[in-house]
Amino acid sequence: MATFALIEYQDAAPEVRAVYDDIMATRKIDWINNFWKAIAHDPALLKRTWESLKQVMGAGALDALTKELIYIAVSVTNNCTYCIASHTASAFGKGMTDAMFKELQAIIGMANETNKLVTGYQVEVDQRFLPPLPR
Amino acid sequence: MATFALIEYQDAAPEVRAVYDDIMATRKIDWINNFWKAIAHDPALLKRTWESLKQVMGAGALDALTKELIYIAVSVTNNCTYCIASHTASAFGKGMTDAMFKELQAIIGMANETNKLVTGYQVEVDQRFLPPLPR
Amino acid sequence: MATFALIEYQDAAPEVRAVYDDIMATRKIDWINNFWKAIAHDPALLKRTWESLKQVMGAGALDALTKELIYIAVSVTNNCTYCIASHTASAFGKGMTDAMFKELQAIIGMANETNKLVTGYQVEVDQRFLPPLPR
Amino acid sequence: MATFALIEYQDAAPEVRAVYDDIMATRKIDWINNFWKAIAHDPALLKRTWESLKQVMGAGALDALTKELIYIAVSVTNNCTYCIASHTASAFGKGMTDAMFKELQAIIGMANETNKLVTGYQVEVDQRFLPPLPR
Amino acid sequence: MATFALIEYQDAAPEVRAVYDDIMATRKIDWINNFWKAIAHDPALLKRTWESLKQVMGAGALDALTKELIYIAVSVTNNCTYCIASHTASAFGKGMTDAMFKELQAIIGMANETNKLVTGYQVEVDQRFLPPLPR
Amino acid sequence: MATFALIEYQDAAPEVRAVYDDIMATRKIDWINNFWKAIAHDPALLKRTWESLKQVMGAGALDALTKELIYIAVSVTNNCTYCIASHTASAFGKGMTDAMFKELQAIIGMANETNKLVTGYQVEVDQRFLPPLPR
Repeated sequence: MATFALIEYQDAAPEVRAVYDDIMATRKIDWINNFWKAIAHDPALLKRTWESLKQVMGAGALDALTKELIYIAVSVTNNCTYCIASHTASAFGKGMTDAMFKELQAIIGMANETNKLVTGYQVEVDQRFLPPLPR
Repeated sequence: MATFALIEYQDAAPEVRAVYDDIMATRKIDWINNFWKAIAHDPALLKRTWESLKQVMGAGALDALTKELIYIAVSVTNNCTYCIASHTASAFGKGMTDAMFKELQAIIGMANETNKLVTGYQVEVDQRFLPPLPR
Repeated sequence: MATFALIEYQDAAPEVRAVYDDIMATRKIDWINNFWKAIAHDPALLKRTWESLKQVMGAGALDALTKELIYIAVSVTNNCTYCIASHTASAFGKGMTDAMFKELQAIIGMANETNKLVTGYQVEVDQRFLPPLPR
Repeated sequence: MATFALIEYQDAAPEVRAVYDDIMATRKIDWINNFWKAIAHDPALLKRTWESLKQVMGAGALDALTKELIYIAVSVTNNCTYCIASHTASAFGKGMTDAMFKELQAIIGMANETNKLVTGYQVEVDQRFLPPLPR
Repeated sequence: MATFALIEYQDAAPEVRAVYDDIMATRKIDWINNFWKAIAHDPALLKRTWESLKQVMGAGALDALTKELIYIAVSVTNNCTYCIASHTASAFGKGMTDAMFKELQAIIGMANETNKLVTGYQVEVDQRFLPPLPR
Repeated sequence: MATFALIEYQDAAPEVRAVYDDIMATRKIDWINNFWKAIAHDPALLKRTWESLKQVMGAGALDALTKELIYIAVSVTNNCTYCIASHTASAFGKGMTDAMFKELQAIIGMANETNKLVTGYQVEVDQRFLPPLPR
């Protein structure tokens, strides 16, 4: 077994194929992206990650597009090239407009800036912001 | 001048007071949180940061609450205690429900996990995800 | 001098060659990887880094393979492509099995996730966990 | 519901208690640490996280102590105070000696240093390190 | 509009051209680097970012080269390939010598190491270091 | 031995005292800060770290204050509370003025912002910036 080779559908064990099938059915697509083909080397991880992702990213109190925006914000902050590329593509697929994309990036930039200003100035948290928050 | 002391309204120079006034008017509140009182030592930074933030965080293609969620996602990923506390409070103030809060945290957690799985497995970006994206 | 060109053995000053020789002798290999050839522009850094690394990564209370796993965990979390590639190769060379590789990645992923859940939920450290720890 | 209040056993819903019970049984302890009491606000997250963690952190190809060391390496690199405190305590509980603790910290320090040296010098990955690796 | 295509001068709207012109005039160069051509999709961001950068990076209490070194330190720590490449080139253009480059990298490496040692050993801040600092 | 207790001078082994003595002599102070007292549990690490730091932070092509500013830039970006507090105090001790402090923080903020804008917009590095750089 070559650890890093991608596992294609035709070479996949039944338990892996089952996950691939569910990914394609859920997303209404006919292909699997490299992330899944890579972690398929660990079928338990593949299954657990897909099931968690499906549960977490499906529409709930937050709609599916908002969830993608949050995912991108984390991925940019972590500098994860793969995740930025895949989730940006996904967000456009779910209806992100150019205007939304630009606002998203501007917020990510500002948040990273103010995160560091607050840190460098060693600002103490205001009492009012401490949990438990008045609701 | 003590660099780290917070600059209270009554001690602030007119240019700083003008920013404080605009913050309170824009947010419809009667107090200033510590972040602004700290960076007020650099009035140019204070003014620039506030004006950028006002421009970036105001409702546009994305609504104000979605923007707060993105801000929190960055702040949690950066582990910025102050920003997490202040923007979590702010998000609740703008209508974040408990359900939204939980979904937000679950996504942030998942995204941080998959960002690292993709990195550790050294997964190459799929050609389909490379910009320019088909739109 | 071109700062970023790699310094090959035949072009290296005696003090640099001495480090290269020790790297090859210690690792029982006949080549030098790019990291050392790059920082060889700063011979003091080269020597200090190699000597520290040799001291730190040699078998001690922890065996050499466990140390590589720890190195990879840091490198993945930092998203350092070079270090992930080199230390993953090194770990396989020191006996990391496919099963170990997979468990390692799963832990790195989980740890990055729970690190952020704890942060986003603003969880206070339990008194029992505060040092000095009961031993 | 106060989002940030910790959910104690006596106040927990049956599904949460079931997880708490399994944590205590698995770890052979009679208390629950704050992390679980915080994310218990999201019972699905609690259950998923605990089950994943139990699966990932149990002894396998890597022993349980090695897994804790990896967890600590991630947590220190991420600067997660809570996770450092809890997993350091846990590692001591699983047999980490003082000597191991010191070697662990030294490696984490070195890895963080060389991660940045390689980045700052913009070192290209050696062809030999590129996957698929010769095995 | 293709979000990720770079916006060249000849295709740029007047407001974008005005920023490009100011960048070239300020830097005394006749070309625009990709960063600006990318964020030009958001003219407000382009203008705001350039004006802030011009204000922040111009010589003041700190000279322009020192400012570049600080920029590189952040970019290396964040692992931002683009920023490292552009600001390293810029620093050489502003007079960074090879010796300075090497010292810079050594400090960045050491700082990243000690940041993590202090974190892993869970060291408390000395009372003397707490702000407000005696001046 | 309590791993996390600080090792005071009077309780220190001769090899540790020797380092403490050198720290105080080099810095012309009569006390030791907590960082050293913590890592003194690992005398080899203590010695290696201090000797590297003394070598790296002493005036060279870059002056001692500039080096502190770089250290702070890394520490803020890494969100290392201890290091920010200690190196900010140290920088003031070495002549950092309030104006320098403010410019430093503004640069750190901007750099963190643009690092993420470049990442989120997935900007490719300009050919001109690729090493080896024309000098």
